[in-house]
Amino acid sequence: MRNDERKADELRKINMITNFTKHPEGSVLIEVGDTKVICNASIEDRVPPFMRGQGKGWITAEYAMLPRATEQRNIRESSKGKVAGRTMEIQRLIGRALRSVVDLNQIGERTVWIDCDVIQADGGTRTASITGAFVALVLAFGSMLENKSLHKMPVTDFLAATSVGILPDKTEILDLNYEEDSHAEVDMNIVMTGTGEFVEIQGTGEEATFSAEQLQVMLQLAKRGLQQIIDIQKEVLGDLANRIGETKRPNGN
Amino acid sequence: MRNDERKADELRKINMITNFTKHPEGSVLIEVGDTKVICNASIEDRVPPFMRGQGKGWITAEYAMLPRATEQRNIRESSKGKVAGRTMEIQRLIGRALRSVVDLNQIGERTVWIDCDVIQADGGTRTASITGAFVALVLAFGSMLENKSLHKMPVTDFLAATSVGILPDKTEILDLNYEEDSHAEVDMNIVMTGTGEFVEIQGTGEEATFSAEQLQVMLQLAKRGLQQIIDIQKEVLGDLANRIGETKRPNGN
Amino acid sequence: MRNDERKADELRKINMITNFTKHPEGSVLIEVGDTKVICNASIEDRVPPFMRGQGKGWITAEYAMLPRATEQRNIRESSKGKVAGRTMEIQRLIGRALRSVVDLNQIGERTVWIDCDVIQADGGTRTASITGAFVALVLAFGSMLENKSLHKMPVTDFLAATSVGILPDKTEILDLNYEEDSHAEVDMNIVMTGTGEFVEIQGTGEEATFSAEQLQVMLQLAKRGLQQIIDIQKEVLGDLANRIGETKRPNGN
Amino acid sequence: MRNDERKADELRKINMITNFTKHPEGSVLIEVGDTKVICNASIEDRVPPFMRGQGKGWITAEYAMLPRATEQRNIRESSKGKVAGRTMEIQRLIGRALRSVVDLNQIGERTVWIDCDVIQADGGTRTASITGAFVALVLAFGSMLENKSLHKMPVTDFLAATSVGILPDKTEILDLNYEEDSHAEVDMNIVMTGTGEFVEIQGTGEEATFSAEQLQVMLQLAKRGLQQIIDIQKEVLGDLANRIGETKRPNGN
Amino acid sequence: MRNDERKADELRKINMITNFTKHPEGSVLIEVGDTKVICNASIEDRVPPFMRGQGKGWITAEYAMLPRATEQRNIRESSKGKVAGRTMEIQRLIGRALRSVVDLNQIGERTVWIDCDVIQADGGTRTASITGAFVALVLAFGSMLENKSLHKMPVTDFLAATSVGILPDKTEILDLNYEEDSHAEVDMNIVMTGTGEFVEIQGTGEEATFSAEQLQVMLQLAKRGLQQIIDIQKEVLGDLANRIGETKRPNGN
Amino acid sequence: MRNDERKADELRKINMITNFTKHPEGSVLIEVGDTKVICNASIEDRVPPFMRGQGKGWITAEYAMLPRATEQRNIRESSKGKVAGRTMEIQRLIGRALRSVVDLNQIGERTVWIDCDVIQADGGTRTASITGAFVALVLAFGSMLENKSLHKMPVTDFLAATSVGILPDKTEILDLNYEEDSHAEVDMNIVMTGTGEFVEIQGTGEEATFSAEQLQVMLQLAKRGLQQIIDIQKEVLGDLANRIGETKRPNGN
Repeated sequence: MRNDERKADELRKINMITNFTKHPEGSVLIEVGDTKVICNASIEDRVPPFMRGQGKGWITAEYAMLPRATEQRNIRESSKGKVAGRTMEIQRLIGRALRSVVDLNQIGERTVWIDCDVIQADGGTRTASITGAFVALVLAFGSMLENKSLHKMPVTDFLAATSVGILPDKTEILDLNYEEDSHAEVDMNIVMTGTGEFVEIQGTGEEATFSAEQLQVMLQLAKRGLQQIIDIQKEVLGDLANRIGETKRPNGN
Repeated sequence: MRNDERKADELRKINMITNFTKHPEGSVLIEVGDTKVICNASIEDRVPPFMRGQGKGWITAEYAMLPRATEQRNIRESSKGKVAGRTMEIQRLIGRALRSVVDLNQIGERTVWIDCDVIQADGGTRTASITGAFVALVLAFGSMLENKSLHKMPVTDFLAATSVGILPDKTEILDLNYEEDSHAEVDMNIVMTGTGEFVEIQGTGEEATFSAEQLQVMLQLAKRGLQQIIDIQKEVLGDLANRIGETKRPNGN
Repeated sequence: MRNDERKADELRKINMITNFTKHPEGSVLIEVGDTKVICNASIEDRVPPFMRGQGKGWITAEYAMLPRATEQRNIRESSKGKVAGRTMEIQRLIGRALRSVVDLNQIGERTVWIDCDVIQADGGTRTASITGAFVALVLAFGSMLENKSLHKMPVTDFLAATSVGILPDKTEILDLNYEEDSHAEVDMNIVMTGTGEFVEIQGTGEEATFSAEQLQVMLQLAKRGLQQIIDIQKEVLGDLANRIGETKRPNGN
Repeated sequence: MRNDERKADELRKINMITNFTKHPEGSVLIEVGDTKVICNASIEDRVPPFMRGQGKGWITAEYAMLPRATEQRNIRESSKGKVAGRTMEIQRLIGRALRSVVDLNQIGERTVWIDCDVIQADGGTRTASITGAFVALVLAFGSMLENKSLHKMPVTDFLAATSVGILPDKTEILDLNYEEDSHAEVDMNIVMTGTGEFVEIQGTGEEATFSAEQLQVMLQLAKRGLQQIIDIQKEVLGDLANRIGETKRPNGN
Repeated sequence: MRNDERKADELRKINMITNFTKHPEGSVLIEVGDTKVICNASIEDRVPPFMRGQGKGWITAEYAMLPRATEQRNIRESSKGKVAGRTMEIQRLIGRALRSVVDLNQIGERTVWIDCDVIQADGGTRTASITGAFVALVLAFGSMLENKSLHKMPVTDFLAATSVGILPDKTEILDLNYEEDSHAEVDMNIVMTGTGEFVEIQGTGEEATFSAEQLQVMLQLAKRGLQQIIDIQKEVLGDLANRIGETKRPNGN
Repeated sequence: MRNDERKADELRKINMITNFTKHPEGSVLIEVGDTKVICNASIEDRVPPFMRGQGKGWITAEYAMLPRATEQRNIRESSKGKVAGRTMEIQRLIGRALRSVVDLNQIGERTVWIDCDVIQADGGTRTASITGAFVALVLAFGSMLENKSLHKMPVTDFLAATSVGILPDKTEILDLNYEEDSHAEVDMNIVMTGTGEFVEIQGTGEEATFSAEQLQVMLQLAKRGLQQIIDIQKEVLGDLANRIGETKRPNGN
């Protein structure tokens, strides 16, 4: 039995409030258990310098925590004057993951800025960010479809993320909360598509290692959990969900 | 008639959700019209170096906006690597205002960190921050009273803030929204106590000036508005409201 | 009796040396009692990016102290690698105040850089900076009039600043020196035009509050002091003083 | 056939020069094909503040490239004033991987600084860094054993890293060079121990995704390659290699 | 004939106003032609961390220019967030030069901060800074002698600096102004003691080189000029001048 | 006898490996005793903004040390977020010295980036950098001559650097190692051309001073040493050495 009474293969309760704030083209508040992240997608009508003149778009992500999202207050990165390595790692991951299911040629020379701001943290903030950011991104494209600045949904597949891990007693578990994450021997974040392909696997055993067999068990746990999460995304997105996949992945993988 | 159909002396609708997030000692989501600010108060058991050994506490504030709190996305201050002048001005104002109604001798060598994070902006974010932060601060002291780390509410009076201004047609108005703020000739922020004393007056006429008579009209508007806001604070705070004033201002002003 | 034997409503001795350094278009050393500030105005033939293509000019201000302008040596902001909140607040105030009496349309796409460098501080450095910067600005425009790069003085009115405050014994006083400023319960900076209109009112009661009646007394003190300061500006500016007002404030306030 | 005529499962030539520079406690120049990295291990007799008083040691890594390690010259991070996200991600990975095979309790309150400086880059700099840094670390502990500041080799197992990936023609390959890395659809870095357990798996499909079957093929390729690399480490380390494992992993994974 | 009608071996007019500002322990405004520098010496009762516990003092210097000290306005280093290489080079030079004539053992664990702030620049700001800073330093020690915190003047010799150079017509000249400095083929700064020993020689031929013979001519010019400058320092220092040398250089060079 | 058994006028053993890394247009590993520096020259087809449109080129240098190039590990400047004064001083010196022997008009609007990265330090890193960078620069121009992007070698003369100094026993010595440098009373770096003209003389006596006679002895020592170093450069450069001087110094010094 886990510390919050879940079974090993049980997700925390997931809730998403769309249009959470009024200005962004796409806005979602995602709650995964006690982890709460505001995911906003903003469309900018130009691309960064290294992309100009190619007729393609770009998706980039930023991630931050409110200082008191955590049990102990953290110093703001703006006060420190620099962005921590952990933050950069997470924002690079979010951007990369979202780009894997969008045909950037379809969106023209535009940048989509994804902002994931954690207002309450209880483990799994990066995976919740990806799951919520995917929905915010689809909503933003939805508003572009509506005002005819896009003619086809450029999203090729669903995308969601969760964590799996191994507790000191060697149990493999799904969707670690903060308490579990602090004690787990192995922690792995998995990003998967709606068709069950992997986009990212990041597994780490800082104070331990893991065998090929343990890896298989964790991948299975993740797969089943991610299918449930994608079902929730479909429900939240309503009609827009049906348009996902109307663009095919360009290089046909 | 104003752009949102309010009368000149009418406040926007104010709503406060207490305990909005679970970790902080005091947490409030304040909504003033479409302006929404998360105000968190965190207690730290030490003071900054310049205060050590005096047996007194300190209150300091930080203020930030989510990148897409506004119509146009703003670059994060952490990405720019520095905090803007406007941000610093606002956080200095919030800290100073809150300190004016707290007997810092009562709280021992502790720092209260006030974090005001704007999740949606529509004008008046700094005054909404002060009004909400006051409630978060009282809640934090409330939790300290409960766990006996404080024995007396150290807050000497209520505290709230609002804005007044003069439109190009020379009307004096209360509680400017973003649209009004952009066009106003004069903009003034007022911080007042429950007993109707001024704590801060910051009036600016960048593209205009104002006479002593206009100043009087604006001060009257502000005073009436602030009394209504303080009534809302009382309601939100419930029983804790009654403990405000059980400490007297040390220098008897 | 005050610590320097002035009466409550008495200004410190003010002295201004024009053309204090040779390179700037306008240069003034202002002395207000023991406070000494070098105020330089520099004309640059372009405007910041956000103003381009509008045919209007811009005025911006920077403020700094020599490390040993004060009793205790301060660390340079260049060594710290960042500009303090107080500094930013002051430079924003100076720029805003000067812009309120200049018709920016008259000066074309030019920036006036105002540099206020405090070489000796004894209270009231920000108000001395505004009073001196106004003179430096008029001198700079004077040199542009002379070399025909301007045809009309774009300054609509005189502008000066001073402080008022309330001592612990509840006396309202004019023009606080450092010693007084350290002990005052209320401190208020007032920027006023030659016609007696307010441009900025910034009143703060960090360890105290103030009533509407006290506010009126302070405003009266400030008004009389500022009229005397503007008389000194007129004398220092000589013939140029007569050209102030030949442009009217555009929006007729 | 690959662009450098290797077979799909063939490593590039690996060479390691130990004691490459004279000052560090452990120093290795590792060459993996045309990728060359100086790996230095330095012992400092204290730990970072968050570790003090626990009687344990710490291992931390820094990674950098000479500006002209690459085809195009890169701007130094010291000139830019900040460390890139990619750099931070790599140094966090190196540190984490090394810590997984060291019993930090054995080394007392000391920090081992690992510096990986790439002097020539041709793909796989992060995995070459881990493989070389492991040898530098063992050498540093070797010198501590020799001067009796350690009594037991605190390294529990061998550790090496390599990359695997999928080319656009769907071939899975081992040990990608720069050219291959630029075109690969999937790129995966694997860190493994001498006993064949995984320490880190980081697989990314930015412009593609990968199936569970493809993952298995890549993991197999990596496993065989890593065994060969560990054999080379053993040879380079000579007698010291025999002492690896004389400390057992504390939590017995 | 030079552009300001001086002879090749003629110094510009030098003027020093002592006690220029009231707070520093030693304060001098030095004018060398149109170059004007405020040199302040501040005593701090502790030394930097790397010097603690040795019973010796330290002298360190900072150098800056007001933005409009020059013909074109310069951006403040505090705004840029970093100190330029040229600035650092100059402040290292000033500190090193002053330390060469002070017995740091005599002053106890104190730091003397030298601040050289150029308010008007016309060439030779670094050498004027050294010449003026020496006087400010002696004044600061004088005030310490007076209040008995020192018992012996710790200054072993006089110290002054000037520049020499070679014009495109191959004339060697003394004390270059800005115009000359811009065109000179060779520029050399010399710091010398009262007894004619060299402390620093920094000669540079960026667009030219110079022979051993030209070097000798320049050194002679500098020597004669520096003797005149030291005579001016003696006059300015009055009685304090007589105490210089009462401490001998510790290592008897 | 010196600490490494050299005579007072004896250089350390010098070794240069050309084409040390494969990407740069010119690459040299220089070893001067135990000091080892990688000197890379990179050609970029544009000049910095302040040089544009003049049809001339530019040469700029950067200098860094690996953290463990020294006995004690140094913190990376990228981690500190700023470049030290010493570093800036050295990179300005290297750039200036190289520019003195190149006709920048010959190379068109191109920048040559010189990177000097010290991998092992034992005194004289800045002079070894200049000596090695000169060779890397000539190699880079050699590759441009070969691919016809240059038609004439733009280097007007050889260039090398070394140090001289005075030990506490008053011996003048050539080419100080780290141990000697730490104890020397006077330290002087000399940059000289193949025809024996001076380019830079930087002599410093922080804890001592030096007479005109001592200066002469040091200059003689340097001259003889530099001729030997230039002979080594000629040998290393082979045929390319013969092309040095085919461009004459433009201003005929």
